[in-house]
Amino acid sequence: MHLFNVQKTLHAGKLTEKILKLFMATGNENILSLIQSLNIQHILLPVLPTKNMSVEIKDNEVDIVITALQPDLTSFMEDWRPIISQFHIIIVKEPGLEEDLQIPQGFDHQIYTGSDIQRIAGHTSITFSGHSCCYIGYLVSQKKYVISIDSDCLPARDKNGCVVDAVAQHIANLQTPATPFFFNTLYDPYRTGADFVRGYPFSLRTGVQCVLSCGLWLNLADYDAPTQAVKPNERNHRYVDAVLTVPARAMMPVSGINIAFDREIMGPTFFPGFRLPEEGKQRWESMEDIWCGLCAKVVGDHLGHGVKSGLPYVWRSASANRGDAFGSLKRGWEGVKLMEEVVPFFQSVRLPRTAVTAEECVFEIAKMVSERLGQSNAVFSKAAAAMIEWVKLWKTVNSQQA
Amino acid sequence: MHLFNVQKTLHAGKLTEKILKLFMATGNENILSLIQSLNIQHILLPVLPTKNMSVEIKDNEVDIVITALQPDLTSFMEDWRPIISQFHIIIVKEPGLEEDLQIPQGFDHQIYTGSDIQRIAGHTSITFSGHSCCYIGYLVSQKKYVISIDSDCLPARDKNGCVVDAVAQHIANLQTPATPFFFNTLYDPYRTGADFVRGYPFSLRTGVQCVLSCGLWLNLADYDAPTQAVKPNERNHRYVDAVLTVPARAMMPVSGINIAFDREIMGPTFFPGFRLPEEGKQRWESMEDIWCGLCAKVVGDHLGHGVKSGLPYVWRSASANRGDAFGSLKRGWEGVKLMEEVVPFFQSVRLPRTAVTAEECVFEIAKMVSERLGQSNAVFSKAAAAMIEWVKLWKTVNSQQA
Repeated sequence: MHLFNVQKTLHAGKLTEKILKLFMATGNENILSLIQSLNIQHILLPVLPTKNMSVEIKDNEVDIVITALQPDLTSFMEDWRPIISQFHIIIVKEPGLEEDLQIPQGFDHQIYTGSDIQRIAGHTSITFSGHSCCYIGYLVSQKKYVISIDSDCLPARDKNGCVVDAVAQHIANLQTPATPFFFNTLYDPYRTGADFVRGYPFSLRTGVQCVLSCGLWLNLADYDAPTQAVKPNERNHRYVDAVLTVPARAMMPVSGINIAFDREIMGPTFFPGFRLPEEGKQRWESMEDIWCGLCAKVVGDHLGHGVKSGLPYVWRSASANRGDAFGSLKRGWEGVKLMEEVVPFFQSVRLPRTAVTAEECVFEIAKMVSERLGQSNAVFSKAAAAMIEWVKLWKTVNSQQA
Repeated sequence: MHLFNVQKTLHAGKLTEKILKLFMATGNENILSLIQSLNIQHILLPVLPTKNMSVEIKDNEVDIVITALQPDLTSFMEDWRPIISQFHIIIVKEPGLEEDLQIPQGFDHQIYTGSDIQRIAGHTSITFSGHSCCYIGYLVSQKKYVISIDSDCLPARDKNGCVVDAVAQHIANLQTPATPFFFNTLYDPYRTGADFVRGYPFSLRTGVQCVLSCGLWLNLADYDAPTQAVKPNERNHRYVDAVLTVPARAMMPVSGINIAFDREIMGPTFFPGFRLPEEGKQRWESMEDIWCGLCAKVVGDHLGHGVKSGLPYVWRSASANRGDAFGSLKRGWEGVKLMEEVVPFFQSVRLPRTAVTAEECVFEIAKMVSERLGQSNAVFSKAAAAMIEWVKLWKTVNSQQA
């Protein structure tokens, strides 16, 4: 076990060299056997002395946040019971919903209603209707991690027909490091049976902390209204058994349907600030999560953290009450057009070194939104104002809790 | 069919708006039905009037390049027969190999031996031994596309047990556009049953031309000597059913084991210039393909083209004559150390706008290698010299052919 101590005291890069020199000098198979018997996946990694990127996540550090857009959560909760019942659950009732919620027994949950939202958010220009009410759940959570899954999604089955534990997979994604600075062609190198491929620099194999895990959807994919209108019958049946780190500086469309994140680090980047003028209650009629995701990616990149995409899948239902994407085209189309400005903007954002927390980063991005996009569309100036309000709200609520 | 003509005459972005306005103004389901019946995957895409990124690849535009590191190619060729027999095949015999090659009947092939290499390359500092002899095949090919698979690889089977047609998949990867400017979370959006997810800007959905397709390996993954030494018994059994575009500016380790590329555009970026002092004949003892891949990625990004990674898999054998990775540590270790300088260098390369061909780009990179890395290790100054020699050789050989 001496090697572990060697590891902890040596500086990055030096370790690899030292161990390999030891191999070569002695040619001693015993050293190799010892290392193999210790079952150390990445013994040859340069390990930073004070920074181990793998984290341990305990059940009591996780909140599951669920948005109730319709009153009866019975079948949803029952289907998820084996997966979520050991966690604390925050249920946010959409403010426009009048009926009482139906929630089965046996869950450690807390419900937030319209009046709670009003009490917590106070006087604000931010709107928490539709899917946007989930952000109240992120705000009031007192846990380090949040996992959020839309209530029209059920547990998926993998290619062997086994039920996917989406929560466990999200936690695994957040627990193991991300590798945003060099792409690993064999996907997640920390997964059992995988590793870094030839040519991957050893100094980058420690990875960085993963702060956002973006899961995917079987059955009904998360398409925009135009795509959905053109392909109303398309279903996603392909189970891609992979998780990958989205490279630094690459932007991506983060969907709020199935995500998990480190709330302590990234919480302030998730807010309902980007609201379309005629936003509806279907995902394809809104864009607020896409905007948050771009903020989160820019902030994560700036702070040196990583974002993963891929597993876990959830099974997204295509129920009749979802409505007609064709009918949503008018609302969805506004968002589609705006993305032509939004994406180049986020691709160009460079944050100042003085911004070292997500709050500070969001504040800086808000200023840039206001300056560079504010004139182009009222949606943007409203988003900038909401971002600043959100950061203040986040600070207030979280300082009260602390 | 009128819509097609509309498409061709309208400018990017305008089309989407026009069609959607038509939808909204008329509310006419017939328009939608018409579009659906036409089965146009991306009717809502803004189509650039003069640039269609999808390309058609014919069998006679493809060369299969095989490196013979041992004389008997019988079982290799027989296993690949159903997949490669319709293509022209270039077989490059490793110059150190004395025995005659054994190649079964029925292939349209051409063999290049040590004396051919000498005749073609002439007086040069570039060494074409080991895996590096394949580059002669890339040089002499007169086809637009090259597909190259190591001769210790056999056709893989997919998760349903069906033999994978690696050639067809590489061609599909090169035929359909790449999307390097925004990450699509559902992987390849052009695949049947997939599309761009919500939030993906429509103006980027046309994609750019894919010029490099990097396939993967089942059974024995492409690990470096240290990883192979630590995990001698690890085998890759996970078939990840996906192809993705590696985002612009993200660097990756390209393996030469299983690749395809647009030779006309990218050919000059594939050369054996980065040669380790004690390079052996195992992939894990060499790094020349990793260097090429970094060049190719930088050049592809600069020229506005895309690189894909993922399918197709090949089944890489773990035969006894592969030798002992532990014994290769000394040779492989040199390459491992050098990557710590190589990767940051390529991450920092910015090419001048005046460089508009791969030849010009490689020439510029060679100058930078010489200036920035040349002092650090003789390997780098030799690589820079080889790159310049290669570009000249490429021009000479290809102008003779033309």
